[in-house]
Amino acid sequence: MDNLYQDERIDYIAGTDLKVIQSPSVFSFSIDAILLARFTYLPIQKGNILDLCSGNGVIPLVLSTRTKATITGVEIQERLWDMARRNEELNKLNQQLHFELADLNQLPPSIKKGSFDVVTCNPPYFETVSEEEKNKNLHLAIARHEIHCSLEDVIRVCSQYVKQKGKVTLVHRPERLSDIIYLMKNYRIEPKRMQLVHPKKGKEANIVLIEGIKDGSSGLKCLPPLTVYGLDGEYTKEFEEVYIGS
Amino acid sequence: MDNLYQDERIDYIAGTDLKVIQSPSVFSFSIDAILLARFTYLPIQKGNILDLCSGNGVIPLVLSTRTKATITGVEIQERLWDMARRNEELNKLNQQLHFELADLNQLPPSIKKGSFDVVTCNPPYFETVSEEEKNKNLHLAIARHEIHCSLEDVIRVCSQYVKQKGKVTLVHRPERLSDIIYLMKNYRIEPKRMQLVHPKKGKEANIVLIEGIKDGSSGLKCLPPLTVYGLDGEYTKEFEEVYIGS
Repeated sequence: MDNLYQDERIDYIAGTDLKVIQSPSVFSFSIDAILLARFTYLPIQKGNILDLCSGNGVIPLVLSTRTKATITGVEIQERLWDMARRNEELNKLNQQLHFELADLNQLPPSIKKGSFDVVTCNPPYFETVSEEEKNKNLHLAIARHEIHCSLEDVIRVCSQYVKQKGKVTLVHRPERLSDIIYLMKNYRIEPKRMQLVHPKKGKEANIVLIEGIKDGSSGLKCLPPLTVYGLDGEYTKEFEEVYIGS
Repeated sequence: MDNLYQDERIDYIAGTDLKVIQSPSVFSFSIDAILLARFTYLPIQKGNILDLCSGNGVIPLVLSTRTKATITGVEIQERLWDMARRNEELNKLNQQLHFELADLNQLPPSIKKGSFDVVTCNPPYFETVSEEEKNKNLHLAIARHEIHCSLEDVIRVCSQYVKQKGKVTLVHRPERLSDIIYLMKNYRIEPKRMQLVHPKKGKEANIVLIEGIKDGSSGLKCLPPLTVYGLDGEYTKEFEEVYIGS
């Protein structure tokens, strides 16, 4: 593989045969993205899936191990979109995956409203950003902060592009859970299934996974929590089962 | 104690010196009420607390062990209100507790809007009720089902009676969590602190505790979960610490 740029490297995604090009200075996937890709409902044999804020395409890559559906990833940063395309090639997934360079607030007409069985998104987590952070590393700042899209933009677009009764699945910080639920309900995505992830036993949650249904009926299931690390500092068995699938 | 009616009995509240009159055919407290009374923020030395849907007064009783604030309980059913008054007497709490027989949608002017530091409520959990259930036991039906007040009524009244920046704390079923968060935000109660309670490890949550601040800033903390029973069928240590305080 000769098309690696700058400080890019190839990592493996635990529990899969997938290779993923990433770069600490531009974009590296987090456990959040993997957990979202494992958590979301998926149609198995066919269908259409949309992943917003795709970054280097890690979520579509992991989803491809669980479904034969077509997966479209949308990314606004050309540098990351290019990385996602190379990840698609590297894993020979050109038949199933497709990455679009676009602003989710102005998606091209080829991506059709109301046509996706599932929309996933691991959006930027932070509302504000300092000029210093922007200047230091704009790639990371855009991926992490609501610079080009707000949480409301994300949820509105999820709602526009998902089918009636289709699923919208997000991963975020629990700090934003009430905003997420409020916005989902405002945009007719009824929250149906939620899981909190705690770094250790006895610690507050630092990740929330949530799935809603477009025009679904009211009623939320709160799944058993996931605890990432045990007292021994190693992954817990329950976490490994989800994260690595072993 | 000679003023026990019908099938009433006196129980003790674990971890306290409190005695509580209750009756399986009219109203018995659940662990939900105790957990709410342990979970809620309270001013310690002084202040005013309002408890809606008070039943036999179990929440004000437990709150009295944690604060010197004045506590007003509101109950719509005369039979339960009378039981709450007798519980107040039985525990010699006449100076601190006061029970009002009232519909929360028509509170008397003696209960002042915007005057409470904390409003707590363990509301009826179920939206609908069959005629059969109503006929079988109207006392239990009213306590459990949204017959005289909806979830929206509860949250609207909490918001009306709490002080600016005061706290509103509820216990409910997780199924209603998204409705609760949506309504809290609509009535300017910003959810700030939440805890899920799971009956056993690996099971979905069946209780949610949630606290919001009137006109608070956005940002929810999701506390470590509570698991009630261990694999041995006994209360877990973490649960005992909260429930019994030992």
